Amino acid sequence: MSLTMYQASIPSFVRMLGNLSTILDKAAAHAEAKKIDASIFINARLAPDMYPLNRQVQIATDLVKGCAARLAGIEVPSYEDNETTFPELQARIAKTVVFLQSVAAAQIDGSEEREITLKFGSKEAHFLGQAYLLDFVYPNFHFHLTTAYAILRHNGVEIGKMDYIGGY
Amino acid sequence: MSLTMYQASIPSFVRMLGNLSTILDKAAAHAEAKKIDASIFINARLAPDMYPLNRQVQIATDLVKGCAARLAGIEVPSYEDNETTFPELQARIAKTVVFLQSVAAAQIDGSEEREITLKFGSKEAHFLGQAYLLDFVYPNFHFHLTTAYAILRHNGVEIGKMDYIGGY
Repeated sequence: MSLTMYQASIPSFVRMLGNLSTILDKAAAHAEAKKIDASIFINARLAPDMYPLNRQVQIATDLVKGCAARLAGIEVPSYEDNETTFPELQARIAKTVVFLQSVAAAQIDGSEEREITLKFGSKEAHFLGQAYLLDFVYPNFHFHLTTAYAILRHNGVEIGKMDYIGGY
Repeated sequence: MSLTMYQASIPSFVRMLGNLSTILDKAAAHAEAKKIDASIFINARLAPDMYPLNRQVQIATDLVKGCAARLAGIEVPSYEDNETTFPELQARIAKTVVFLQSVAAAQIDGSEEREITLKFGSKEAHFLGQAYLLDFVYPNFHFHLTTAYAILRHNGVEIGKMDYIGGY
């Protein structure tokens, strides 16, 4: 069995979003137990000019819904980016997982050389599918997942790397 | 051209280690310019029970030298883990890149179902090559790279996500 574009993307994304969900559950439970307003965590940042927790989760989910849609050649779902509570962030993760799971392997496999164009304001970046997945989506996705983890860890939530990686 | 185990590993690892090297160069220059002892950054942590910067770099490099060697079925190079300065961390990154580049595509391609055993003290974890790469190495590698970035960013080094991802 050879590695495919589908195997290198969707199952891994779903797995990591499940781990993120667990981490956010632990953070919500920690806030509740310590009687800390959950918004303290939702708005926490590692530096004044870094994004807060909710934006990290929004961007992480954006990256993988965009990846699944672009590799499959279908429309990227649009979300409002209005989540300000743990349940709202969990709902965003859940709907992202539902979308990811709606994309079939046959839609993504063979997308190694599919032309992908990303727009950043007035700029554009062009990729082929494989480089888009490996050089853009993967590092970006993990960057935001790890930053979400690090924000919570820095603020005293009792999570460990096994929560990030998941069991094995 | 189909995605291969080699393409999904070595070039991506080399690219990300190059970005890490750039980030550490910026941190060393920042320390120099601000007359801050470099060891402050080398020993900085995001939480008291998280690893400091030098250990993050050691683990990140361990993960990819281990991955390249195990997928290729060759001996994993052993490093001393004694780096305490920016030049020493850069030397570790550089020797890791040399090792990664010494492994040929033909040695890694086809390793999707190679049996991999990792030992953690008295415990063992068993993987097939593809799951080892996607579920273990990739999340772990990015976890430590992003944590290294976040430690420096949290401590005021002027770096941005483009330094982490690299140009595109």
